[in-house]
Amino acid sequence: MKNSFTGYASFKKDETLRPFEFDPGELGADQVEVAVEYCGICHSDVSMLDNDWGMTKYPIVPGHEVVGKVVAVGSHAKNLRVGQRVGIGWSSGSCLACKHCLSGDQNLCPQGEGVIVGRHGGFANRVRAQWPWAIPLPDSLDPAKSGPLFCGGITVFNPILQANVKSTERVGVIGIGGLGHMALSFLSKWGCEVYAFTSSDTKRDEAKRLGAHHVVNSRDSAQMAKIAGALDFVLVTVNVPLDWKAVIGTLAPRGRLHFVGAVLEPVPVEVFSLIMAQRVISGSPTGSPVAVVAMLDFCARHAIAPVTEMFPMSKVNDALDHLRAGKVRYRIVRKNDFAS
Amino acid sequence: MKNSFTGYASFKKDETLRPFEFDPGELGADQVEVAVEYCGICHSDVSMLDNDWGMTKYPIVPGHEVVGKVVAVGSHAKNLRVGQRVGIGWSSGSCLACKHCLSGDQNLCPQGEGVIVGRHGGFANRVRAQWPWAIPLPDSLDPAKSGPLFCGGITVFNPILQANVKSTERVGVIGIGGLGHMALSFLSKWGCEVYAFTSSDTKRDEAKRLGAHHVVNSRDSAQMAKIAGALDFVLVTVNVPLDWKAVIGTLAPRGRLHFVGAVLEPVPVEVFSLIMAQRVISGSPTGSPVAVVAMLDFCARHAIAPVTEMFPMSKVNDALDHLRAGKVRYRIVRKNDFAS
Repeated sequence: MKNSFTGYASFKKDETLRPFEFDPGELGADQVEVAVEYCGICHSDVSMLDNDWGMTKYPIVPGHEVVGKVVAVGSHAKNLRVGQRVGIGWSSGSCLACKHCLSGDQNLCPQGEGVIVGRHGGFANRVRAQWPWAIPLPDSLDPAKSGPLFCGGITVFNPILQANVKSTERVGVIGIGGLGHMALSFLSKWGCEVYAFTSSDTKRDEAKRLGAHHVVNSRDSAQMAKIAGALDFVLVTVNVPLDWKAVIGTLAPRGRLHFVGAVLEPVPVEVFSLIMAQRVISGSPTGSPVAVVAMLDFCARHAIAPVTEMFPMSKVNDALDHLRAGKVRYRIVRKNDFAS
Repeated sequence: MKNSFTGYASFKKDETLRPFEFDPGELGADQVEVAVEYCGICHSDVSMLDNDWGMTKYPIVPGHEVVGKVVAVGSHAKNLRVGQRVGIGWSSGSCLACKHCLSGDQNLCPQGEGVIVGRHGGFANRVRAQWPWAIPLPDSLDPAKSGPLFCGGITVFNPILQANVKSTERVGVIGIGGLGHMALSFLSKWGCEVYAFTSSDTKRDEAKRLGAHHVVNSRDSAQMAKIAGALDFVLVTVNVPLDWKAVIGTLAPRGRLHFVGAVLEPVPVEVFSLIMAQRVISGSPTGSPVAVVAMLDFCARHAIAPVTEMFPMSKVNDALDHLRAGKVRYRIVRKNDFAS
């Protein structure tokens, strides 16, 4: 346990990140401390850096797709031991006592703590989390590639569990980026017939390599009309407005449109189109610790790994520029190069 | 089997109904013919009379909440015999061969036939339906009150089955009218804690008599704010715009907003409010024959009956005026007074 952590922080909106040393205080009794080996970059890091959601406290050390090794264990922390390799995602704590926590929905805890919400995250040499949220990484998964599973990965894996997607179903993924590319792998290994929706023709072949059986241009109304009523489950990973009427129109009777992309503009839903075909619209955030364990196990069994580009931690601003330019294929991971 | 049926028809939009005699043709091999004893009036009858949905064919004999006795059975009809008392709701046929029919979702059959869509319904001495859609009425249910169960009733009962509402849950019903008043009875007998939402203070006591534990004025933002995050399932039976943000705000994590009222204006859905609390929005039409049987059995066990006002069939225009004036408490049933 260290008394001083070193990370990269932004001190105000629109500033680049620079080295930052901070005192993390005493390790909580139910916390573990993790020496960061790798940390992904998620669009939510950018949203937090830009204070898009009005909840950023500067200086902020972003980073919530951590893989690293446990270096200290609080006196009341369970399950973990020093030296164990773990991952940490969006959440770093929950009350463990409310109805949702006790039901296994710790990710829905109203008191849930976000790693980078009012505290410092994984663009650093060390990060802490409450023990249930530091989840052991199976040995067969590559630590250099697994960080993105803990936020982007679980965000698209959890809906498959929650919506009870069946392996016999036809499913769609809208947006083939950091989240969507993992969703294609998950759903194809799940056994489904998978449609990838993208407006970028350059991603067509990649989508097929990732497991899509069909690729549809979501901005081409003729292509959309052709699959009207065909899909049982459509996962929206983009956060931009689409022709939602056409998207809902692709759903079969009993079909479900599920959002994990934080589309800011309200989606106009025609009630008749829900009623007549008993359709469902839903959304979800990340997932519970048990869901993360199920995902990691599924990844290990099916050799699923995020497609990543590696940057050293010290090149954090270059990595962020690359992400903001929309050029990442498909997720950045930064390798810790702090002096240890 | 008769060669000539007598009913009340509207010959064009905005005309009152008048007596109408028509030839129903040959009885289909998979149909039964029913002598109408009682027929409810549903808002959908008014929508069809007014051609609100652009699918009305004049002359139209409305009526799709029929109770009566089987008087003829087609050569390939199953399960039914002459003399049996049955009910018929919105649907009078489905293909029985598509994926949905074979899955028990006959109500989602794309080839589904509506009793009053391009054919004549229950404001008549006789009506026909394909055998699965003429459903035996349990002896213990009052035939004079049961017609409304077959459309309005199943429309609000089916969502309870489909959404897998649990008896331990807190639920809400928006709109205490023809559909909503039955939903209150169903949900209170289901074992739930029931909130009735109404903008009419005059319905407060009635809602409690029907089984509501709490009554909330849906147009009072303070009352709505007080139950933010409280409800697991909210059923919308109205077809007018509401403050949907406040309505969605009443949902607990994992809560579901379910529409059976054909709200015409698109509902603006804030995706963030779905994502953060894993909420669901959905809709459904009527229900399958098996769901109707389950509802009738539930009504028999719990002595549930629609609250009705009785008109003779010949006073059809008076009954429609009464309905259009919004004065019905809560469902009209017309008793057949045709010469038999």
